[in-house]
Amino acid sequence: MQSKLPRVGTTIFTKMSKLAEEHQAINLAQGFPEFDCAPELQVLVDKYVRSGKNQYAPMAGVMALREAISQKIFTSSSHEYHPESEITITSGATEALFVAISTVVQRGDEVIVFEPAYDSYVPAIELNGGIPVFVTLDPQYETIDWNVVASKISPQTRAILVNTPHNPTGNVWKASDLQHLAALAEENGLFVISDEVYEHIVFDGRQHISASSIPGLAERTFACGSFGKTFHTTGWKLGYCLAPAKLTAEFRKIHQYVVFSVVTPIQFAVAEHLAEPEHYLKLSEFYERKRNLFFDAINDIGFITRPSEGSFFQNVSYANLSPENDRTLSERLTIETGVASIPVSAFYDNITDFKTLRFCFAKNDDTLLRAAEALHKVV
Amino acid sequence: MQSKLPRVGTTIFTKMSKLAEEHQAINLAQGFPEFDCAPELQVLVDKYVRSGKNQYAPMAGVMALREAISQKIFTSSSHEYHPESEITITSGATEALFVAISTVVQRGDEVIVFEPAYDSYVPAIELNGGIPVFVTLDPQYETIDWNVVASKISPQTRAILVNTPHNPTGNVWKASDLQHLAALAEENGLFVISDEVYEHIVFDGRQHISASSIPGLAERTFACGSFGKTFHTTGWKLGYCLAPAKLTAEFRKIHQYVVFSVVTPIQFAVAEHLAEPEHYLKLSEFYERKRNLFFDAINDIGFITRPSEGSFFQNVSYANLSPENDRTLSERLTIETGVASIPVSAFYDNITDFKTLRFCFAKNDDTLLRAAEALHKVV
Ligand SMILES: CSCCC(=O)C(=O)O
Ligand SMILES: CSCCC(=O)C(=O)O
Repeated sequence: MQSKLPRVGTTIFTKMSKLAEEHQAINLAQGFPEFDCAPELQVLVDKYVRSGKNQYAPMAGVMALREAISQKIFTSSSHEYHPESEITITSGATEALFVAISTVVQRGDEVIVFEPAYDSYVPAIELNGGIPVFVTLDPQYETIDWNVVASKISPQTRAILVNTPHNPTGNVWKASDLQHLAALAEENGLFVISDEVYEHIVFDGRQHISASSIPGLAERTFACGSFGKTFHTTGWKLGYCLAPAKLTAEFRKIHQYVVFSVVTPIQFAVAEHLAEPEHYLKLSEFYERKRNLFFDAINDIGFITRPSEGSFFQNVSYANLSPENDRTLSERLTIETGVASIPVSAFYDNITDFKTLRFCFAKNDDTLLRAAEALHKVV
Repeated sequence: MQSKLPRVGTTIFTKMSKLAEEHQAINLAQGFPEFDCAPELQVLVDKYVRSGKNQYAPMAGVMALREAISQKIFTSSSHEYHPESEITITSGATEALFVAISTVVQRGDEVIVFEPAYDSYVPAIELNGGIPVFVTLDPQYETIDWNVVASKISPQTRAILVNTPHNPTGNVWKASDLQHLAALAEENGLFVISDEVYEHIVFDGRQHISASSIPGLAERTFACGSFGKTFHTTGWKLGYCLAPAKLTAEFRKIHQYVVFSVVTPIQFAVAEHLAEPEHYLKLSEFYERKRNLFFDAINDIGFITRPSEGSFFQNVSYANLSPENDRTLSERLTIETGVASIPVSAFYDNITDFKTLRFCFAKNDDTLLRAAEALHKVV
């Protein structure tokens, strides 16, 4: 049969997780926590399953959860999202991103994508007949050259896809980046699709600035978030999309035919858990300690690197230590050293090597120290 | 903004459920059970949440669940599906259908759709640039005229979408229908997308025959099923798609970017629950009793109707009792009589009245009797 996604194979996350399992390697590849969610949250799931919250949720999500989001999350946002018409609960941020892209991208439309880019963006654009236009950044980049971004915009450009805190680099956008984005999007009438799943994981006193916080941006932005990253429940597949009412109306037309609605008892449980802000406000502290632990433990190896600014990923460049391709090195380290990572070139469209590996530090301290020790032996 | 689905509004299910809620009407509209799932199943969810099965499931689904499906479900099927390469767990049958349609439908392809049709098929076809070609059946139809179906096939026809047991009519396909389908699909090289979510709910000694059971069909069929209908857990959003390895490979390329994976602890719980076939093999009996109860209770009203053959829906035609449009009657009954239904014309593309209402009998006996009593007063 003719493939709808001829260039797509198995995702790098599935591939590396499988390889890690086969070789019993420490899995710092796919981004998920090694530790469990809060016991209180588990008790809440049981409470709602037992009290019979097991039938279809409303298509846009359980109202208690939408209300909790409108009150608690994005408190830094200047924009107040209305639970009835501007918040939709999705099957993870993956579905939120897929549906947001499907909502705005018509056949032949161009979408600006910064690479390295999370691997679902481009297939979602292509399934909708859109054309990704890449702004290619070195994985070690410190600033975005907005003149380059502007130069990529054509009359066909329909949207720009942004991601902060950034996967895989761990970079966090500054206020000036969002100002540039706002100017560009307004001037060119672009929609903004903003992947903010690591919104609650930022380090060294940084603040996450949502695209939805910026005047001029909020009215054109689909802000996509995830509960999985925040509550250590990546397997619950619970996310959301915030967008102005007109955009949300179109978003929901598609969401209702992609999944219709999302797992009901877990929505109720998370809604109740969200009512206590300390359940997520201390997450940055928690992960900053782990970042420091891992960074310090690998720092003398000779990697060229900066500490991650946010997310639970640390990138390292080994260009000065070895000429090996990052894909083969990543596989070799998994098999020989027992530490799995993701080769950062996998986040690029057309680049097969960037001599950079991504490590996930959402792991127990002991695991991180064992991984660092193993890495010392090899390089 | 330009709408991707300009003809789509709120689904009829959301609309009627809302109206039912506003007027505290008995909700026989949206198809979901009034009763809860088995307590053992609830205990299993708690077990897996507490034992830490809260991170990403494998993209194709938890292996224990895929194995349980390959061993237990579709035992009537001549085709054995391989858990590794032919079974994918989805976010409900809705996602399975959306992804199957996205997998086969390219821009300009025609897809044969029988109407009345479940409301998600056509938007999914249109989002992929496909063209639905309708075979229009009276909701009271007893047999399909396969010459009419054959006459709709053109060189552009890519797939045929079938649904048995059928929503909304409650009709169950006979072996001869599946033989006709097989001949037509083979002759014209069509893919078959088969919605079989009511596979375990068939009455009066009938057997559900899966498209995947028929030689010649299995190799071109995406068979989509749902655990929600079988275990009274519509809110858990757990479904699956069975398809030969080559089709499954393409299906998964899309599934992985639409939702990536599905709620982990619930997959483990359902896998364990499935190991006992009596947990679902008695479902037909359970619902046949309810169908009889409801049918007998409304039979003297003067509706022209036949008892439902499968699913948990009973259609009634009131053409000889009232000339009122089915959409307005359905709304009026909800508001004035306190019984919500779905107007069957909502399942047609271009027909605004069919003088037929669909009632869901997945309700407690008492609810069904109260609804029947209220209906007597009105008509
Ligand atoms: C959906 S699997 C990928 C998880 C993740 O966000 C990552 O590893 O980047
Ligand atoms: C996904 S909401 C619709 C439920 C259903 O299957 C129906 O009522 O037909």
